[in-house]
Amino acid sequence: MKILKITSLSNPAVKDAMRLAEKPSKDGSFIIEGPHLLEAALSSGCAVKEIFFTEAFGSKNEGRRLIRLAQEKNIRLIETDDAVIAKISDAVTSQGTAAVVTLKPAGLQDINLSGNPLVAVCEGVQDPGNTGTIIRTADAVAADAVVLLEGCCNPFNPKSVRSTAGSIFNIPVVMTTTSALLDYLKEHKIPLYASSVAKGIEIFEADLREPVAIAFGSEAHGLGSEITAGAAAALTIPIKGRAESLNVASAAAVCLYEALRQRKTA
Amino acid sequence: MKILKITSLSNPAVKDAMRLAEKPSKDGSFIIEGPHLLEAALSSGCAVKEIFFTEAFGSKNEGRRLIRLAQEKNIRLIETDDAVIAKISDAVTSQGTAAVVTLKPAGLQDINLSGNPLVAVCEGVQDPGNTGTIIRTADAVAADAVVLLEGCCNPFNPKSVRSTAGSIFNIPVVMTTTSALLDYLKEHKIPLYASSVAKGIEIFEADLREPVAIAFGSEAHGLGSEITAGAAAALTIPIKGRAESLNVASAAAVCLYEALRQRKTA
Repeated sequence: MKILKITSLSNPAVKDAMRLAEKPSKDGSFIIEGPHLLEAALSSGCAVKEIFFTEAFGSKNEGRRLIRLAQEKNIRLIETDDAVIAKISDAVTSQGTAAVVTLKPAGLQDINLSGNPLVAVCEGVQDPGNTGTIIRTADAVAADAVVLLEGCCNPFNPKSVRSTAGSIFNIPVVMTTTSALLDYLKEHKIPLYASSVAKGIEIFEADLREPVAIAFGSEAHGLGSEITAGAAAALTIPIKGRAESLNVASAAAVCLYEALRQRKTA
Repeated sequence: MKILKITSLSNPAVKDAMRLAEKPSKDGSFIIEGPHLLEAALSSGCAVKEIFFTEAFGSKNEGRRLIRLAQEKNIRLIETDDAVIAKISDAVTSQGTAAVVTLKPAGLQDINLSGNPLVAVCEGVQDPGNTGTIIRTADAVAADAVVLLEGCCNPFNPKSVRSTAGSIFNIPVVMTTTSALLDYLKEHKIPLYASSVAKGIEIFEADLREPVAIAFGSEAHGLGSEITAGAAAALTIPIKGRAESLNVASAAAVCLYEALRQRKTA
């Protein structure tokens, strides 16, 4: 496939990509940056619409290999310059490539539940780094899905996608409402545990060997009343020192890995 | 104490604070932003040199309370505007206050080791959000110290301090070299475990009930050869899904909390 050369910021393809970097589209198109995410996208089932890359990127071994792979898949290739890459990504230093990809938005009904479901739920997690990191950790423990409720940032924005380190392509990320989630969990007999900074069952005392969903709330306010009311129990991570709480992505790592630990030794 | 009114960006106090926001000083002075960190600083033993605040901040209950507390401690108070606060902090939205504080830089000899030491070690952790989050988690498990080796970001830069959520005032953060750390750990009979993405003892199989230091490496390259060679063993967090690795602050949370869990049930 012929490689296009575009360096004008007013070119429609560039302008579309810039818009997506600002705001991922409702149909599931978003921007990925750098060779690592590009490789993850190419090796996943995700549709890669077009790849922008610099001459320097294309002349390196890694770049050549990825471009060849893209050509085999008939993906549109656009050679451009660092100025354009910088405009369609938000990384501080250009990694020489960015691409437009489309992941069909997943609904609750698209989750392919395992025999012993483990679901991570976020509500009001606004920081894209935290959201992306939770998606990465959920992938690491082979959770069934990450469900993002009201008030969460868009997981397809560039910073969140970068923080997933590619896990956005490995695990279903579902955006839905608290009431739809509660109905779904009830239907599938998955109890919900609400993480809480105090007054819950201590995480290491909780039984996480059976199907479970664990919800994590906003840094500032914790979980809202609707989801707390719908939870089977509150879960608390013990704090032995003087910190008041943990970062939400760290809290998710502790809880999800405690579930993995219990399931391994069960 | 009289409250000064300064809104000029060329005022020496403002210029000094702007310089510290850019680069914390070698004598341990740095900038904190917002009421939460200010409260943590005031209630810790740390020296607060001066507090900048806006009229709006000073007219809120929380602001009034903190200013009264500062006056009792004879801390210099400077009423200013949001433009100045924005210049001496790096937060996207001004929280109406920023302060210059000084924490005497801690050395290894300043660590007040507990009966059963737990030490978190970072090497090459460049992202200030990760460094700050690890400090916060280490505080939460009541670790004895966080030791930052070669290649780590400065933990006193505004983004790192913000990510500690105040824990920077609760736990010694020591910046030193790998060889000095290895000598120190040997002298105090604390074995070092090197976290590694593969080929180590699985974290849940490792015995973390006795004195231990756990080292975490850079996102991109892991731990260097000197510290790996000085470690008693490599530790690995199991990955069940398709993620290649965890975020380093998430990895630290899993390891430090596994140590806490084992010690609680020991």
